[in-house]
Amino acid sequence: MHQIGAELDADTIERVRHSMASQGLMTHLGATLADIRAGLVTLRLPFRPELTQHHGFFHAGSTAAIADTAGGYAGMTLFAADKSVLTVEFKLNLISPGRGDWLEATGRVIKPGRTLTICQLDVWGVTSTARTHVATGMQTLISVAPPA
Amino acid sequence: MHQIGAELDADTIERVRHSMASQGLMTHLGATLADIRAGLVTLRLPFRPELTQHHGFFHAGSTAAIADTAGGYAGMTLFAADKSVLTVEFKLNLISPGRGDWLEATGRVIKPGRTLTICQLDVWGVTSTARTHVATGMQTLISVAPPA
Amino acid sequence: MHQIGAELDADTIERVRHSMASQGLMTHLGATLADIRAGLVTLRLPFRPELTQHHGFFHAGSTAAIADTAGGYAGMTLFAADKSVLTVEFKLNLISPGRGDWLEATGRVIKPGRTLTICQLDVWGVTSTARTHVATGMQTLISVAPPA
Amino acid sequence: MHQIGAELDADTIERVRHSMASQGLMTHLGATLADIRAGLVTLRLPFRPELTQHHGFFHAGSTAAIADTAGGYAGMTLFAADKSVLTVEFKLNLISPGRGDWLEATGRVIKPGRTLTICQLDVWGVTSTARTHVATGMQTLISVAPPA
Repeated sequence: MHQIGAELDADTIERVRHSMASQGLMTHLGATLADIRAGLVTLRLPFRPELTQHHGFFHAGSTAAIADTAGGYAGMTLFAADKSVLTVEFKLNLISPGRGDWLEATGRVIKPGRTLTICQLDVWGVTSTARTHVATGMQTLISVAPPA
Repeated sequence: MHQIGAELDADTIERVRHSMASQGLMTHLGATLADIRAGLVTLRLPFRPELTQHHGFFHAGSTAAIADTAGGYAGMTLFAADKSVLTVEFKLNLISPGRGDWLEATGRVIKPGRTLTICQLDVWGVTSTARTHVATGMQTLISVAPPA
Repeated sequence: MHQIGAELDADTIERVRHSMASQGLMTHLGATLADIRAGLVTLRLPFRPELTQHHGFFHAGSTAAIADTAGGYAGMTLFAADKSVLTVEFKLNLISPGRGDWLEATGRVIKPGRTLTICQLDVWGVTSTARTHVATGMQTLISVAPPA
Repeated sequence: MHQIGAELDADTIERVRHSMASQGLMTHLGATLADIRAGLVTLRLPFRPELTQHHGFFHAGSTAAIADTAGGYAGMTLFAADKSVLTVEFKLNLISPGRGDWLEATGRVIKPGRTLTICQLDVWGVTSTARTHVATGMQTLISVAPPA
């Protein structure tokens, strides 16, 4: 198995980029892939009023969407090339208000597996001067055959 | 305390509608309030390609966003009028693919409290002929003074 | 598939009772099977000082242990006879202090599956005059071949 | 605030030891405090048949009990001396079978707070030659006045 954080071959990176591009929600929110490593994927989501809750901060739904996606792709980097990924469940603690010029979400595989893979999810709110831990969570993924 | 599911006064309903309208993300996704009762709020989210994951179904992030919001407002209906609501944490199991003409998300207060309130979250995928349980989860809310 | 709550054949009930009897922890805590139905199992745990936390109430670990076991067996009643069950993950909200003459824990299958099964977990603290909702949670189970 | 992992004064350590000694369940299971640092507490639980599930491994309830307790005391080390701690909720992923001569559970504060504190929970199964990551989870604690 790959060591978590190791560099990946071009095919795997392309597979993740291609899947990400097919996610309507990620485009709609404005999220982009910032880093793709073995079992470790980072997404970035610039602030827009379209992403906010009732206090003007990033909505927990925005935070959750990129955390879930980062974790899903972190898992997918360790799957066989003919497998796709689905989220079984995730849990997120919102530990600070979602403030920042952008959010950065990291999914990190804690326990890879043939059927189930477990990821840690972390989201930071980033400005030019500060980096705040906004959310932390866990996620269970399942490796599946892609739908026909 | 109100009985869960009871009708609400016009002021509380207006307070929820006003807060919902201020959530940029809900407008951006296209979610609307379908029903507002004491401790029991339902949101609706019509299908759009802008809400999808890599298999073309509703993204878990879309599901999570409306589930979290439904729960937050379910809690808020039971808070004092000068309090706002924040999500402490939530956990969601994605139990069926997010298929449907629209999603319907319900937040239901299980345990109201002066500081913390616990909600059950459920999301269904709905078509003219079927109603599928797409996700189920739990959420912890905190009652806070609104930011200045 | 069985309807949740339906009566079970004697073999399935015996399979659950036999497995429960082999759980050293359940005997050590003093938990017993109170009801075994299709996808719906109830355990009972009488109060003892050996089960308490630092305020003298049932410890969250006692609550979690019987909730997890109730859910596991609820799932197992729906599995093929040659399969065993493992907990993938569970989440529990402790919504009231664990007071009562005994705890009653129910696991109820929300979504059965060939590989994964999702249960709702609920625990009540019971006295001769009151029944308090002590904890509520969710659990993901996996159906596995028993270890050799 | 203390740095996580910093040494603690004798009073705080004594407060944790005293509380632990009052937990009937920890004595009944055979768990002991192995290390007490600021926001970082480790418990040890030697294997006994009284702690097992139906395959003869540590029961998820045993794992959960010491994980929850380790997290609770990790939080308590950062509270004011006149405050007690309750678990609001926790979530645990059981990532490997609970095998080992003993379990080691660590609670680590990720986000301290005046009302709510968030901990990461990790449990290892330990033998003289191996150390396996058995479970990982998250926990939300609340600081409360002790019951009268």
